[in-house]
Amino acid sequence: MEQVNVIKVGGAVVENADTLAQLLADFSALPGAKVLVHGGGRSATQVAANLGIESQMVGGRRITDEAMLRVVTMVYGGLVNKNVVARLQALGVQALGLTGADADLIRSHRRPVGEVDYGWVGDVDRVRGDLLATLIRQGIVPVVAPLTHDGEGHMLNTNADTIASEVACALTPFFDVTLTFCFEKRGLLRNPDDEESVVPFVSEADFAQLKAEGVVSGGMVPKLENAFQAIRRGVRSVVITRADHLDGQGGTCLS
Amino acid sequence: MEQVNVIKVGGAVVENADTLAQLLADFSALPGAKVLVHGGGRSATQVAANLGIESQMVGGRRITDEAMLRVVTMVYGGLVNKNVVARLQALGVQALGLTGADADLIRSHRRPVGEVDYGWVGDVDRVRGDLLATLIRQGIVPVVAPLTHDGEGHMLNTNADTIASEVACALTPFFDVTLTFCFEKRGLLRNPDDEESVVPFVSEADFAQLKAEGVVSGGMVPKLENAFQAIRRGVRSVVITRADHLDGQGGTCLS
Repeated sequence: MEQVNVIKVGGAVVENADTLAQLLADFSALPGAKVLVHGGGRSATQVAANLGIESQMVGGRRITDEAMLRVVTMVYGGLVNKNVVARLQALGVQALGLTGADADLIRSHRRPVGEVDYGWVGDVDRVRGDLLATLIRQGIVPVVAPLTHDGEGHMLNTNADTIASEVACALTPFFDVTLTFCFEKRGLLRNPDDEESVVPFVSEADFAQLKAEGVVSGGMVPKLENAFQAIRRGVRSVVITRADHLDGQGGTCLS
Repeated sequence: MEQVNVIKVGGAVVENADTLAQLLADFSALPGAKVLVHGGGRSATQVAANLGIESQMVGGRRITDEAMLRVVTMVYGGLVNKNVVARLQALGVQALGLTGADADLIRSHRRPVGEVDYGWVGDVDRVRGDLLATLIRQGIVPVVAPLTHDGEGHMLNTNADTIASEVACALTPFFDVTLTFCFEKRGLLRNPDDEESVVPFVSEADFAQLKAEGVVSGGMVPKLENAFQAIRRGVRSVVITRADHLDGQGGTCLS
């Protein structure tokens, strides 16, 4: 089966001119089929602030009222997405920007109100993997913004990590899929202060052990849980690496 | 040959909730293959103003400095485009939002500085009609924002009327193309104060005559010149009508 690499980069990387240039150069050099999923939270916060709209976060998640939905639709779907697409085109990559609304790519539902009302935030119901596979086979490189739609005319703000996982899983009937999460560290570190202490391979059994030892804690726990969930759903491997090591060399490989 | 209707609607229609709802209902009811090209200038002006950026217009054209390019990329490519796409999806239309950068759809060059420096404004070099035709044949309805790219990593602000004409011409090798411009009046009026005085058919010879009589003047002259240019380039007919008469009944048909 043909391979595809679904790569997720956070806002911090795409919003800084230097790291973005490096990322896009590395991404364009990656061989084979690929998909880029990007964040954009810092730009959204900044544009919102410039518009006099305050960003409210709960547990790292953005509360998305109507005004904020307009901002993230502008920033993720327009500013960040089109800037990335235009720059990839300049590097010879046949990039096509997409949100979940485009061609009904990612349908979600508004998160039910529990302890927190997140507002116009969507939890993913399904991804049209067939459509993505058709595009990829035509040589197109999808660039996916963290926005979905509810099928009733509303855009919904959706976590970019979740979108990357769901896109990767939806592609498994068509491709041999690797999912790469770029973040600040080179991988899962045995010692958080030592970038040389990357744990190169982690199985699900190792994960339980690493949790028990306290090597994996805090925000990394749900990240790795999501990664292993993707693997159980058919993704070949999940790589955690730094954006300047997009090829995954020296990162942590979960499988 | 299969027919396709390329429909251009101005910002005033897509930016008002009532007229937008009517437009999308009418558009979704149109039979056959179709493309929607939209404006969004008023929203751009408003968002820019809210961000403390002043809109400068020369002869009805927006001067697009770097800050304004960010605004139009957000507003046209994000806010307006995705709102229209999500709402069309809710009406069962397989809409896909595109700018000229996406899949290298519309390449343009920055307008040379003459008497006026328009800034990041693009004049169209070419449209990938083959790509659009492929999408349309897959049942997709392209929704095109008035943005292009220069192939060197920059988005460019591009007149929506021009995009509609260029898209229509690029589709002529693949389809029998009608180009519909929606505007405030029901068509070309013999008496500008009488909506019942629509001139139903205008040939290029009639156009010369109507210009001589002063029935066509001011901003309508370049609009009709562009329309006849599209017809000379293979578009079957150009319809000028009001947005609430999308089927072209009662409008002016140029051919």
